[in-house]
Amino acid sequence: MSSDNGGSPSRRALIGWGGAGLALGAAVAGGAVAMASGDDTPQPVGDAVPFHGAHQAGIATPVQDRLHFAAFDVKTDDRDEFVQMLREWTEAARRMTAGEAVGEGAYGGLAEAPPDDTGEALGLRPSRLTLTIGFGPSLFDRFGLGGKRPAALADLPAFPGDNLDKARTGGDLAVQACADDPQVAVHAIRNLARIGFGKVAVRWSQLGFGKTSSTTPDAQTPRNLFGFKDGTRNIAGTETDRLTRHVWVGDGDGPEWMAGGSYLVARRIRMNIETWDRTSLQEQEDVFGRDKREGAPVGKAKEHDEPFLKAMKPTAHVRLAHPDANGGITILRRGYSFTDGTDGLGRLDAGLFFLAYMRDVREGFIPLQRKLSAHDALNEYTQHVGSAVFAVPPGVRNADDWWGRALFSKEA
Amino acid sequence: MSSDNGGSPSRRALIGWGGAGLALGAAVAGGAVAMASGDDTPQPVGDAVPFHGAHQAGIATPVQDRLHFAAFDVKTDDRDEFVQMLREWTEAARRMTAGEAVGEGAYGGLAEAPPDDTGEALGLRPSRLTLTIGFGPSLFDRFGLGGKRPAALADLPAFPGDNLDKARTGGDLAVQACADDPQVAVHAIRNLARIGFGKVAVRWSQLGFGKTSSTTPDAQTPRNLFGFKDGTRNIAGTETDRLTRHVWVGDGDGPEWMAGGSYLVARRIRMNIETWDRTSLQEQEDVFGRDKREGAPVGKAKEHDEPFLKAMKPTAHVRLAHPDANGGITILRRGYSFTDGTDGLGRLDAGLFFLAYMRDVREGFIPLQRKLSAHDALNEYTQHVGSAVFAVPPGVRNADDWWGRALFSKEA
Repeated sequence: MSSDNGGSPSRRALIGWGGAGLALGAAVAGGAVAMASGDDTPQPVGDAVPFHGAHQAGIATPVQDRLHFAAFDVKTDDRDEFVQMLREWTEAARRMTAGEAVGEGAYGGLAEAPPDDTGEALGLRPSRLTLTIGFGPSLFDRFGLGGKRPAALADLPAFPGDNLDKARTGGDLAVQACADDPQVAVHAIRNLARIGFGKVAVRWSQLGFGKTSSTTPDAQTPRNLFGFKDGTRNIAGTETDRLTRHVWVGDGDGPEWMAGGSYLVARRIRMNIETWDRTSLQEQEDVFGRDKREGAPVGKAKEHDEPFLKAMKPTAHVRLAHPDANGGITILRRGYSFTDGTDGLGRLDAGLFFLAYMRDVREGFIPLQRKLSAHDALNEYTQHVGSAVFAVPPGVRNADDWWGRALFSKEA
Repeated sequence: MSSDNGGSPSRRALIGWGGAGLALGAAVAGGAVAMASGDDTPQPVGDAVPFHGAHQAGIATPVQDRLHFAAFDVKTDDRDEFVQMLREWTEAARRMTAGEAVGEGAYGGLAEAPPDDTGEALGLRPSRLTLTIGFGPSLFDRFGLGGKRPAALADLPAFPGDNLDKARTGGDLAVQACADDPQVAVHAIRNLARIGFGKVAVRWSQLGFGKTSSTTPDAQTPRNLFGFKDGTRNIAGTETDRLTRHVWVGDGDGPEWMAGGSYLVARRIRMNIETWDRTSLQEQEDVFGRDKREGAPVGKAKEHDEPFLKAMKPTAHVRLAHPDANGGITILRRGYSFTDGTDGLGRLDAGLFFLAYMRDVREGFIPLQRKLSAHDALNEYTQHVGSAVFAVPPGVRNADDWWGRALFSKEA
């Protein structure tokens, strides 16, 4: 049946087959834009982000509106089987990020077989879906990879105040799915989990409903669940110099297979919003070191005004986290707000799923968090309840390349 | 500071104050539209839905993209205190649905006091937010309301296959927040919970990331997590006759305070997607009684073709649920897909948060579910794990009216 369209059945094309895509097409041609969750830079809502490149998409890519993140445990001891899964994952990711269904014969296959694609994204647009893979420290205990673990993929120390739930911590590998439509992100993770059945199993997963950072220059900074703009000075995807200096692994930085990659730190940060909401405006602004309405640093008028750190309380979040106070340490943040129902005490289980990319965990998150965990006034209102680190390999270069090729190739 | 704008500080106005709203305004003037999650009818993404009316918004309103639903337990025995909370909730709902912050002095109040609004929706547009309140059976055991419980608010019987989690079942009252931007929906529930602190506590809550039903005539029917279009013949918000017959409580239907209201059944339906995904296409299509690609009934070509029920298997979902097979029973469906992380076995905790509105629970959901729970082939792949019913009072008529006024007024 896929030959109806003279090629592979893209989600976009399938709408057209049904004759229902005309209004959509017209609207897109007319310049449809979406401006959800605080970003006032109009961007095409449905476009595809290129999958191939020197770096994986989903890091410097303008932050999409929604997230589904999944960490997996490996269930096979068979290296070839695992490699085969990585190849199949890559092919599926290539197709899904282009807005296509998994598998050529998604709905034209045998009626007696399960469809190649689970189907819930059929008719939806690519929605700027990016899929970004990372390898956890424990993966290097398998498949004879011990000698290839990068030193920069450091285990995180126990930080003061950590209250980590093992069920939300760690993982042999992970996939970050970001898209403007959550159904597209959920579909992608589900189909990867399905392809991996028997080889990997989901260890934990996290949905994020609202981005809290922007990597688009001059975009309005989104607000977190404390109602504040944070991450004002985040690295923009267009700032090549800062990306090279702080995010991308350089050629001489460690094992060759990681050149062009990055390191990801994920932290599930529960925010005690009921307590925060009973705190005075003055205390809230003191804690962040910004005013709530504009996001301006203490004593300044606009969000992007240069902060005068000494005007802030010594425990203010901005003062403690600012690169000037940390020997220039800068990480690229890509976190999302989450709300996962209610805890046993009737409080919303809500917070920030913190995601940050950096060139070396030892020189990025660890020293920064050592300081913040000891001194940040925010700690009174937050608790880190999940944690993981991943080595994020470089991009898939072309149609023959696959996620992890350089790591798993015998000669590398 | 609200006088800067000559009136109340709308979220939209606040963007303008910061000088960052120009690009946004221009884009809106140019006809910005969003078409997320399968609905190809372009609709303004940011508009406000009127709060006042004969019926509450959020029932016949075109279904928004995202959901945050919360059920509450009452914690006070003081009727006046509870009524005062309902008045405050109504005022907050009136403001939030209009895109305004809670409280006149949201950011212009005393620095020594907590802000009236938690702030994370500041700068976001109204996003078609609707807030819909419902009263559960257990509320009528309180505050001397016993004589006012409508017979149509029937307790649900135990259906075959039910596996209800008490922590996700029941509730003295509930609020359904729907919006195109999830951050706007989450903000609304959070601020109501905050206003209710000490009087009510969240019993359970549910986020929905993708609508599975449409109430817009001729809109493309969204797909559920089984990849199928369901709810093709749903009641459209424009079908006044069907709404009157099947959804709105009539003048002579029971207690006067419910006239113009409706009854809501909420069911958390876990979908065993890993099992489903290993099922053949033929079996999947037999289970629903539709083809997967088009959504056409068995033997037909298009989704909206009239189904020939006898061509389907006797256990097909469409055949069993069709009004023609149930003496005309019709309910308005407004459900959402959910994904809440992973269960202990590494399976996605995903499914359908089923929401349906009807004129009488005894003549709507109960007989329908008695039949489906006994015969529907879908039962092999689903499990009902949460359940609640609510009496949804009529709309708030004007600025002096409030949620539940007719129920709580001494003379009614």
